[in-house]
Amino acid sequence: MDIKEAKDKLAAYQKKAAAYLHALELLNFDGATSAPRGAAAARGETMATLSGELYALSTSNEVAELLLFLESERKKLTAEEDRTVYLLLKDSKKNAKIPRDLYIAYRAQVVRADDVWHRAKESSDYALFSPELEKIIEMKKEIAGYVEPDSDPYDYCLHEYEEKLDSEKLDAFFGTLRERISPLLSSISKTPQIDNAIRNGFFPSKDQEKLSLYLMDLIGLDPEHVALSTTEHPFTISLGSHLDERITTHYYEDDFASSMYSVIHEGGHALYETGCDDRYVFTVLDEGTSMSIHESQSRFYENIIGRSRAFCTLVFPKIREIFPEQMKGYCAEDLFRSVNRVEPSLIRTEADEVTYCFHIMIRYELEKRLMLGDLTVKELPHEWNRLYKEYLGVEVPTDKEGVLQDTHWSGGMIGYFPSYALGNAYGAQFYREMKKEIDVEKCILSGDFAPINEWNRKNIWQYGKLYTPDELIRRITGGSFDPSAYADYLTEKYGEIYGL
Amino acid sequence: MDIKEAKDKLAAYQKKAAAYLHALELLNFDGATSAPRGAAAARGETMATLSGELYALSTSNEVAELLLFLESERKKLTAEEDRTVYLLLKDSKKNAKIPRDLYIAYRAQVVRADDVWHRAKESSDYALFSPELEKIIEMKKEIAGYVEPDSDPYDYCLHEYEEKLDSEKLDAFFGTLRERISPLLSSISKTPQIDNAIRNGFFPSKDQEKLSLYLMDLIGLDPEHVALSTTEHPFTISLGSHLDERITTHYYEDDFASSMYSVIHEGGHALYETGCDDRYVFTVLDEGTSMSIHESQSRFYENIIGRSRAFCTLVFPKIREIFPEQMKGYCAEDLFRSVNRVEPSLIRTEADEVTYCFHIMIRYELEKRLMLGDLTVKELPHEWNRLYKEYLGVEVPTDKEGVLQDTHWSGGMIGYFPSYALGNAYGAQFYREMKKEIDVEKCILSGDFAPINEWNRKNIWQYGKLYTPDELIRRITGGSFDPSAYADYLTEKYGEIYGL
Repeated sequence: MDIKEAKDKLAAYQKKAAAYLHALELLNFDGATSAPRGAAAARGETMATLSGELYALSTSNEVAELLLFLESERKKLTAEEDRTVYLLLKDSKKNAKIPRDLYIAYRAQVVRADDVWHRAKESSDYALFSPELEKIIEMKKEIAGYVEPDSDPYDYCLHEYEEKLDSEKLDAFFGTLRERISPLLSSISKTPQIDNAIRNGFFPSKDQEKLSLYLMDLIGLDPEHVALSTTEHPFTISLGSHLDERITTHYYEDDFASSMYSVIHEGGHALYETGCDDRYVFTVLDEGTSMSIHESQSRFYENIIGRSRAFCTLVFPKIREIFPEQMKGYCAEDLFRSVNRVEPSLIRTEADEVTYCFHIMIRYELEKRLMLGDLTVKELPHEWNRLYKEYLGVEVPTDKEGVLQDTHWSGGMIGYFPSYALGNAYGAQFYREMKKEIDVEKCILSGDFAPINEWNRKNIWQYGKLYTPDELIRRITGGSFDPSAYADYLTEKYGEIYGL
Repeated sequence: MDIKEAKDKLAAYQKKAAAYLHALELLNFDGATSAPRGAAAARGETMATLSGELYALSTSNEVAELLLFLESERKKLTAEEDRTVYLLLKDSKKNAKIPRDLYIAYRAQVVRADDVWHRAKESSDYALFSPELEKIIEMKKEIAGYVEPDSDPYDYCLHEYEEKLDSEKLDAFFGTLRERISPLLSSISKTPQIDNAIRNGFFPSKDQEKLSLYLMDLIGLDPEHVALSTTEHPFTISLGSHLDERITTHYYEDDFASSMYSVIHEGGHALYETGCDDRYVFTVLDEGTSMSIHESQSRFYENIIGRSRAFCTLVFPKIREIFPEQMKGYCAEDLFRSVNRVEPSLIRTEADEVTYCFHIMIRYELEKRLMLGDLTVKELPHEWNRLYKEYLGVEVPTDKEGVLQDTHWSGGMIGYFPSYALGNAYGAQFYREMKKEIDVEKCILSGDFAPINEWNRKNIWQYGKLYTPDELIRRITGGSFDPSAYADYLTEKYGEIYGL
């Protein structure tokens, strides 16, 4: 095999793998959007079959030989090709360690569990869901044992979402956050609470959809490549390549701000994906480099941009145009203050920026203990409720508003939650750099997101998976990860709002 | 290989093929429902890749040997297994005759053409669409030449939708229809026209959706397995198996009856599919036996049931409940008369039962001539307009309301249209038998569709693809296809309505 032929084969293999992933991602998306419920088991069968085919392809001798040959010829590869071979080899070696039957059974299990979770959440019936979660935890542990026999099983879960992340780093990170944010939260709780009546009222879904489309256009999403759907739980998914992005939202007709910020959050994910270099289409580089960097983008648009005074000033006239009756007597400052009201609460996705990290710390602690065997699935709701009381001082009335609120565990996404908190911190650190080059506030006030998006594209989006999170941070900041940027951002912003 | 092992392999092969088909069907469905437009080309790439994989599987030596072995052991097979092996061998032999590159290129072409057709229809721009249609016709001819070198290329197209159908049978069938229906239409045109003001007004999509869900429930669709979406052009698709059916509709806010009858029509297709024996899931028998038999079910529910006086009487109170203002001053008889108003018109899907077949005859003549080389794609709109004038006496003002109105040709479905007309006739013939056993009118008036559905399930649905259309007709009627049942049905019904 000569190098030219090998590179062609590499492209063909990646394109074929992308087609299977496209189908699998679409089956997932369809399950959350349009599919009738009784079809879940049959869909799971199809996904198991196609996953099995992809597994067989990625662990085939032919592919292994190709990748090893290319690895042996590293000096003839571009930086992109080198990274591609590294990532594919890592994945192929990982898959080869998992017995095929276990791999397929796990894929079918997460589809089934996700379906059961939807029903369980609706009826707040944890007992319905717990056997499914038990199976997922067991299978995850088994897989972890095969893939990383020398790591602890929770660190294996973390590696699924960010290379080299481990509990040690997270313990230190959450420790710093708690140290800085707990006193802030305590000071805020002693000042008069912000009025948020502006968010209450009746906001028909159809009108909220108009607001969604306005926001998507405003922040620079390309409607030729990004579409909006509605689901129980908002998410973003790339189907096959960054040329086909889907974001979803959920309209609550008694609070327009919930969907508004979901759309901006998911829009941030979609901006990251669609901003990837088009040369990476149908390759393994065509996605965000880690879930934390992904969340750094989604939560940057949602919070640092979307919950800024400038942004509220910019969009308020449009909100008033769509909801003239409901906005009577309110102004942009009311919007700004209400969407930044700090208040310990039950639902993570609705939480303000200050209390948000506590929601993550609770999930981090629980999923770590589940994976390490220090907590059983049976005990989980009780521990969930206990920690909500301890960290946030709130009583959890039902499992629907408690342990069943998020979709992640039902989809096998254990180790994902820390990405949100890391993303917050990465985003704040990037923002500190961005402000050195761009007058961000002025851009927002004038509705011109091009300079902001261009900065992100140049520094982050275009590279897809080419650089690791650490490399990206070093390239952008010249240093390493520094959670104090985030703590500083929160202290300054909420100090001003609450007059501390 | 022993027979037990071979049967297991047959099941495994069918399940794998069903998974690929599931993915391909879902990619199609997604393209028509949720996908952003700029994603069409990338989706086409994925579909081409997966089609190629399925093609390779179905034409592999392993599968060919398996099928030939089973064919040689026919006497050890059940009737279902025997039919399965026959159908799979036919398909495998057919695929093996088509060069792989042509097969894949054709799949990609129909995805691209369908995307272009959407844009062309919107802007009524035939010139945009015609190069795509030209490519489809060329490729179809080329494929026909490989698969059935001894048939004429249009007969090959017909065989895609019904075994053994040919232009000779259709010429005779359409001849009979024209002979009986032309005088009826002529008599109707001399009587005073029915008022259809009841259909006019403003009917918000959201309320029409309520009507859709009511109708789906009424006619017996299981919401666990049948879901509703909206698309430019209504259709029904099974995703992977009959456990996951999707029907779509299009809401026109100035006419509630359009979507109402689309939902019932597509609901008829979905009833047929979901009524298939559950043992056939993930096998080649798990679908309707031909498109004509499929249309016999959809058009039976839409017209024979849905446009009956009894049905209008049954549903009118619900329509009035949903649209109280719009229905003021109208009664069930107004609904019945307006949805049976006979009037030569431009749009096939909106046509009444009497003029409907002329829309099909026009398409039949045109697509036959295109395939036989007697008509160029360039000349098509002119001929379309000429035939509408000749057969129906109407002037076609724009291509959007003319040659671009239907999705079929853009999806490569040449030879499909006659199915609608045959379906009408098959449906009327089945209905004649059904009435011997069931008081259909009484069932409808009481809103009890169980006996009607049960008759269809027992006689048609449960068998999936086990029997050919001819066998089904023989089993049900004891005789062969007889178009006079349909002509009699129309003559009697419209004679009464128009007082002839």
